[in-house]
Order: sequence, then C-alpha cells, then structure tokens
Amino acid sequence: MQKRNAFYAQSGGVTAVINATACGVIETARKHKNKIDKVYAGRNGIIGALTEDLIDTSKESARSIAALKHTPSGAFGSCRYKLKSIEENRAQYERLIDVFKAHNIGYFFYNGGGDSQDTSLKVSQLSKKMGYPIQCIGIPKTVDNDLPITDNCPGFGSVAKYVAVSIKEAAFDVKSMAETSTKVFVMEVMGRHAGWIAAASGLAAENEGDAPHIILFPEIAFDQKLFLKRAKECVDNYGFCVICVSEGARFADGKFLADAGSTDAFGHAQLGGVAPVIANMVKQEHGYKYHWAVADYLQRAARHIASKTDVDHAYAMGKAAVQFALQGKTAIMPTIVRTSNNPYKWKIGSTTLARVANVEKLMPRSYITKDGLGITNRCRTYLAPLIKGEAYPPYKNGLPNYIQLKNMQVPKLLETSFKI
Amino acid sequence: MQKRNAFYAQSGGVTAVINATACGVIETARKHKNKIDKVYAGRNGIIGALTEDLIDTSKESARSIAALKHTPSGAFGSCRYKLKSIEENRAQYERLIDVFKAHNIGYFFYNGGGDSQDTSLKVSQLSKKMGYPIQCIGIPKTVDNDLPITDNCPGFGSVAKYVAVSIKEAAFDVKSMAETSTKVFVMEVMGRHAGWIAAASGLAAENEGDAPHIILFPEIAFDQKLFLKRAKECVDNYGFCVICVSEGARFADGKFLADAGSTDAFGHAQLGGVAPVIANMVKQEHGYKYHWAVADYLQRAARHIASKTDVDHAYAMGKAAVQFALQGKTAIMPTIVRTSNNPYKWKIGSTTLARVANVEKLMPRSYITKDGLGITNRCRTYLAPLIKGEAYPPYKNGLPNYIQLKNMQVPKLLETSFKI
Repeated sequence: MQKRNAFYAQSGGVTAVINATACGVIETARKHKNKIDKVYAGRNGIIGALTEDLIDTSKESARSIAALKHTPSGAFGSCRYKLKSIEENRAQYERLIDVFKAHNIGYFFYNGGGDSQDTSLKVSQLSKKMGYPIQCIGIPKTVDNDLPITDNCPGFGSVAKYVAVSIKEAAFDVKSMAETSTKVFVMEVMGRHAGWIAAASGLAAENEGDAPHIILFPEIAFDQKLFLKRAKECVDNYGFCVICVSEGARFADGKFLADAGSTDAFGHAQLGGVAPVIANMVKQEHGYKYHWAVADYLQRAARHIASKTDVDHAYAMGKAAVQFALQGKTAIMPTIVRTSNNPYKWKIGSTTLARVANVEKLMPRSYITKDGLGITNRCRTYLAPLIKGEAYPPYKNGLPNYIQLKNMQVPKLLETSFKI
Repeated sequence: MQKRNAFYAQSGGVTAVINATACGVIETARKHKNKIDKVYAGRNGIIGALTEDLIDTSKESARSIAALKHTPSGAFGSCRYKLKSIEENRAQYERLIDVFKAHNIGYFFYNGGGDSQDTSLKVSQLSKKMGYPIQCIGIPKTVDNDLPITDNCPGFGSVAKYVAVSIKEAAFDVKSMAETSTKVFVMEVMGRHAGWIAAASGLAAENEGDAPHIILFPEIAFDQKLFLKRAKECVDNYGFCVICVSEGARFADGKFLADAGSTDAFGHAQLGGVAPVIANMVKQEHGYKYHWAVADYLQRAARHIASKTDVDHAYAMGKAAVQFALQGKTAIMPTIVRTSNNPYKWKIGSTTLARVANVEKLMPRSYITKDGLGITNRCRTYLAPLIKGEAYPPYKNGLPNYIQLKNMQVPKLLETSFKI
C-alpha cells in the first residue's frame, strides 16, 4: 500500500482536551509509518487547508506531542468557519481536494461538532465524485455535549467537572457568609441551546439542601414567578440560594434572558451575561444581597481540573479515528459507547457521518425535574462517571506546564491562493 | 497553670485556606491540653461570641479537623460585622468579656484582615481594664494581601494561583481561536482597593507576547486613551489581547469603572461588573469580538487549585498563634517573614496588633510598570514563590471531598441575650 499523508484539523470552540485527541491521532499515526507518512495539521482549522497553510507535525518531538495530552486549547489553531453547501460554494470543496492532492493527503481527520461532521461527510462525498480517494473520519468534540449517537462528547466531561467543582466551592463560601452577607449566588455557564453543562452543576448537590438549588436550562422556558418563589424558599430553608444558569436560558417566547439585560451608560446595546440579569431579578423582588460569576472561557479551558475520564475519551477518539482509517473505513465517526454505569465501563463504537451531521442532542425531558429547576437521578447516573478521575498537568513555578508547539509550515506546492 | 478554653473566630470574606489556619489552631491546642482545655469557635464569627453561640470543636474527630486543611470557606461561618469603637458601643465589648468569662475563655484568636486585628486589639485593651485577663492573638487572613508588616497574607497565594492559572488557560483558548473569533478577552478579579490579585495574573506571562497583555489596577487611574491604544497594539502584534482588570479599577476622579456600567431593561441601577464595561469599551473603539469572565467567589473559594505555599502559611499562622498564646503573649499577630527569594525561604515572625490594625497595604508603585499597565520584575520576584506548589484535596466521585463539621453548640450559660 502506498504511503500517504494525513490531514488533521480542529474546528469550532476549543476544549480542555481537544489536544489530547490530537495527541491520540498523531501518536497512533506515528506507529503506522508504513501507511501514514506525515500528519499535517491545518493552521486555524479548515482555513489552513483552504489556504494551504499546513503545519508539519513531524517536526515536533515525541515529547512535545505527548505534552498535548495535558495542554488545553487548540494547539494548531481552530476556527469558526462553516463551509457552505456544495451547491452554494463548490469551489471551497474543490480547493480542499486540490490541496489534499498536492500534498498526497489520503486521510482527513476533522475534530469538531455537528457542523464539522457535516463538512467531513461532504468532503468524503466529493472526493468520490472527483475521483480522488480520501478517507474522511470525523472525530467528536464539543463542550456542549450535543452530538447524537455517541454517549458523550470529549470536552464535555472536563467542563462538567469544572462547573461542578466550582459551584461546590463557591457554595461553601456563600454558605459560610450568608448570615450577614451574600445570600444569593448566580453562576453562568455555557450552553446556548443544550443544558448539559448547566446540568453538570447539579452533581455538586449530594445531600438535601446542597447547592446548586436552582438550575436554569435552555430547554425549559423560564418561569419568573416560579423561579423567584423557589429562590425565596431556598433562602428561608437553607439560609442561602445558589443558582446555575445556562447562557441560553430563555423566556417562553424564545427570547434569551441575557437579551433582557442591560444598556451601558452610553445607551449602547446590552453587554451580555445572563447571570447579572438573574441576580438583579432576585434583588428587585426579595432584596437579597447577591454575587454573580460568569465563567466564560475559564470553564472550557480549565485543563488544570480536567476529568480523567474525559481525557481518556478524547485520546481514545483520536486513536480510534486513525485505526478506522487504517482499516479502510470512511465517512464515519468513532463514538463512545457506555456498557455499564457502575462500575463505569465504555468501549469504542462508530457511526456514519450522515447520522451525526448537523444533529443537535438536547437534554431529554426525563433528565430534568418536573418543575424544570433541577436534574433527576437518571441525569445524575448519566453524568456522574463523566467527571470521574483527576488528570493533573505537570507544573513548573506554580503554573501548569503547557506546550506551545513550533508549528512549522509545510512548503506550499500550489501556485494558486484562496480567499477566505 | 489553670486550664482555660480558647475562642477562635473567622472574620470577613473567607478564603480557600482559612480553614487550614483553623486546623493549625485546633490541632496545636489539642497538643497542649494541660493549658488549653477546649477550643470554642464562634458561629458566624464574632457574632457567635456576642450571641453566646459557641461551637464546641472538641466534638469533632481528629480526622475531621485534619480535613479542614483541604476545605475552603469558613467551617464555622464568618461574618461581615465590624465592632464599633469602644466609645460608640462599649456594651459590645463588655458583652464579649461576659461571654468569655462565663465560658472560662482565656485565649482569643481572631482570624481576619485589618478590621479584625483592630477588634483583637480593642478586646485585649478592654480585658485589661475590666480586670479579666485574656490573651488576644490576631491571625492574618485576606485574599487581598493588604495587611502590612507580614510579607503576605494567607489566602492570597491561592487566589493568586487561581487567577494566574485561569488567565493562562483562557489565553491559550483565545489565542487558538483569534483568527476568526474572539480577539479580546477580559477577566475581572477581586481587589477593591489593592491590586495584588490583578498583579498575580501577570505571573502567567512568561515570554514576550504572553497574556495577560494589560493589567488594570485600582492604584493607577484609568487612562482610557492609553488603554485603547495598547489593546489595539496587542491585537496587531499578537493577534489577540487578554486583559485582567481589578474590580476596583477607577478613573482619575476616583469613580469606579464598574459604576460607569449599565442599567437594566427596567432602568434599575447598574448590575456590577467592570469586565463588561472594559470589553464594551474596546468593542466600541475597535470593533473586536470580545468575551469576558467574572471569577467572583470562584477565585477565593478555589481550594482545588490552592497554592501549597499558601496552605503551609495558613496552617503555620494558626499554629504560631497558639504557640504565642502559650508563651503568654498578647496583642500580637504572627507574621510571615521572607528570608530568601530563590530558593524561597520564610519563617514566623510577629508584630503588635497596634501596627496592623486598620492599615491597608497597597501595591508599591515600583511593582507596576511605568505605563501603569503591567507588573515589574520586582513584583514578579515577590509574587512568584507565593503560588508555588500544588496541594490537591482528596476527591470522591470526581468532586473534592470537603468536610462539613457537626458544629455542635456549647450550652449557653448566660441568662441574657444580645441583639446584633
């Protein structure tokens, strides 16, 4: 079999463990040099493929590649850039094939969410049509945990752990001060459409009265009256109230709570942030002193508190992607299959890209309590194993010792350029 | 020598390591049962002393007390309650002495910031006047690092580590996405008057171009023109700009930037948060896509990423406080004395309470770069050892296994109550 190169790209919002997947891809490919010559990474994701800006990962030492496993963010750069449909912009896809052809790329590994799986599918379809064979393997990644078929998405377990740990710690703080100080604490987490991350905060509540006391999901229309009533009940019963709100929390008419927010002193549009909106709502109604936090990127970048389960998943997905490719498979995505909850066991599965492309998995209603303000035991059973285990990065001078790769460019071979 | 009881209380905002100090106090006292009978803790700080709501720590197992060392927040409750001056409210102080007398309390350990040291001092003065001997030892604690004399304050090293680690991680994230997404990231940290916490973010920048690129301190009047110019330079030169802003950042006229903030949809007063104000300012001027985070309580509660140096300091201060008391000392506070930067070495010192009561230590100008937007090497040398070492808590089911004490009340002996 002819040796061919592989292309790997990171897509969309990065995570604490997407580089662990990259590590899995590269380390596995390096073990099969008879089939895969080099792994080229797209600089800034698929943009690197379109502009022929490829990174030669073979220039990195084994040690540097191994360090990816404990380094958050996208080591080669990622991008928010969705390819149009083939009908709308066939030139984009043809350009990809041109670049792949020029660099003898026979394997396309695309690491991202639902959009990215769709792109991988289209590339696989077009490569057939254009008579240039390329094996396309999608690799799951999203902090939002919104891909279907796979039990969970690499990236989610770590943000889930960060959120559960953080709200537990903040709640300890609030509880110890509530008598004379803050009574209501609101933490805003990611999740524009799916409430998985907000749900994960619920893992912090192990006993009656434990925080978080209220969780606001994008899937459940916000009921202001019920919410304010519950907030008061919590302060009355427990002395304080801790709330986790998803950035995508919305009113019954679909409008985001964040948009009911604020204008600045100059009258400019709202500044974003649903946490202050929620906190202020409670203040107006009940007068409680409040504090709020917006974790934003801290949550998805927090490799220092990554879930070991998540790191293992992420690495395994990268490894499996290469193995599938070596088995001659294409247009598929490796998946995580749960075989047992307690003890937690899982194995590698796979799905066709057609089944995951552009499909968004929201929280099932059975994972949310009847009143819409918490998670059920069924949800806990699902989430619990995903945050298990710690996988600390090495430290130097008190800071995590994250790797920054050399990211050397592969010499360009095409004479044409491509406008993004 | 007659056996007497000790009183211990936590005061003001809690930290990731104030319970490590409590652990140091209680474990050391337990080793000297010939002199100290029991350690009573004030429920919710000094309020517990005023209302005779004392917690009997002797009811807790050695194992539970040891677990305090890895548990954030205030295990006995803390409070924001400043005693008035003796002239204004002598009754408060007399009540304290009454409660101490009733419970045979001969040692007063008060764990807090500048206010608390002032209270300790006053109690020591009054106990003399009233002829009831009580040894008063202040114990330093503040995330703000704003106590004088002591090299640093327990609580600060851990929030410093949290902030440096978090901004490093978020910056990795932003850098990998900046080509097509967020170019400016703003993280807001605590520090109403002193910029120590904001300064600590600067430890994340190890090489030219590393984040944070801009730090905004309360000590330096905000220069909007200079700030906006620098933000643009960063995006031009590095492709992105990461900013750490202290909640106390203010204009030349002393007005907080946060107050230049927003009103909500109903026209209510601003919601707080300087990060969105700063982010929006950059957006208005340069049009960059931005994100912002407000760490709020997450930063001071983050025991999961505590500094080992800080935990060691916190424990040592509690231990030293008891030892000083056993040596017959009063009206003093143990301090941390730095004897060497590299390797970092420190020892226990002490100061009179009179020298620390109500004094606030701000950042020296020499710790801030000339342009007011960063930290100097001198500052780095000071800060670096304080975040060194990791001191992970034990985990159970993926979450830190923090202790919640039984907190059993000591039977009341006084027939009078006291209104707070």
